[in-house]
Amino acid sequence: MTILGIDPGYATIGFGIVEQDGGAIRLKQYGTINTPAGMEFPQRLATIYRDMNELMEAFHPDVMVVEELFFGNNVTTGIGVAHGRGVILLAAAERNIPIIEYKPSQVKQAVVGYGNAEKKQVMEMTRRLLNLEKIPRPDDAADAIAIALCHARSNTSLLSRFGR
Amino acid sequence: MTILGIDPGYATIGFGIVEQDGGAIRLKQYGTINTPAGMEFPQRLATIYRDMNELMEAFHPDVMVVEELFFGNNVTTGIGVAHGRGVILLAAAERNIPIIEYKPSQVKQAVVGYGNAEKKQVMEMTRRLLNLEKIPRPDDAADAIAIALCHARSNTSLLSRFGR
Repeated sequence: MTILGIDPGYATIGFGIVEQDGGAIRLKQYGTINTPAGMEFPQRLATIYRDMNELMEAFHPDVMVVEELFFGNNVTTGIGVAHGRGVILLAAAERNIPIIEYKPSQVKQAVVGYGNAEKKQVMEMTRRLLNLEKIPRPDDAADAIAIALCHARSNTSLLSRFGR
Repeated sequence: MTILGIDPGYATIGFGIVEQDGGAIRLKQYGTINTPAGMEFPQRLATIYRDMNELMEAFHPDVMVVEELFFGNNVTTGIGVAHGRGVILLAAAERNIPIIEYKPSQVKQAVVGYGNAEKKQVMEMTRRLLNLEKIPRPDDAADAIAIALCHARSNTSLLSRFGR
């Protein structure tokens, strides 16, 4: 199963592609989609949509996973992120790729083992579980990998629970 | 000039198409795009995108006008609207249709003559200025027509200011 993890946004969108084969989980690709600050906002959305389509064309994910949107202190940034996230969800929906949302605490639980883990611990466990030499950069990509990994591990534990 | 006014959302999106030819302004078409509540959210976004594309294919607007998004009391609804709005902006951006945003007070100013006008006054002035028998229904469509009219009148006053 090919899992596409996404860290949504409008300036930088992280992505991580994780391959899960039973208990074996490996990182296939990761990176970011970037839109320049000087570009008009609607054109930034068009860039995100185009790049998301290229990404799905290249990797044919079976599922897309993305964090539930939560609004922090900066509502203005949150509105921008929600616009970008809408375009990202659209790209997957048009290909009938199932979209699964996790809360930040679920990602921490699945990757580190407890829902209040610190970001640093999530990064370090992501590195270990995927047998990587270093923590992937930038943070947006690492966050996207972590949520893909969260889904891979949730899947695995579900399978093992049913004795497979 | 064909002006497409949009009242954004994810459940009901109002649209109004206003034709402006110098000082002559007429309503060409209006209505709503609707997505069923029972539909999964990403599929609702795909429906909005498809219908927006059909709308632009049918009417070839020269410009799309939409209200600036402002977050009221209900942040959860606001997040949904921002997702839908992202998809709406995308559809126009992909066709290189310019997008112009107005604040609610600017719409009131352009249609009624002062920025603190009540919604009812905006609706009534929209009806009069477009020589309609009744106020268009539903409200989402009327709001979309009002913002298209706002742009048409802002255009006109600009032109007349330069003596054309």
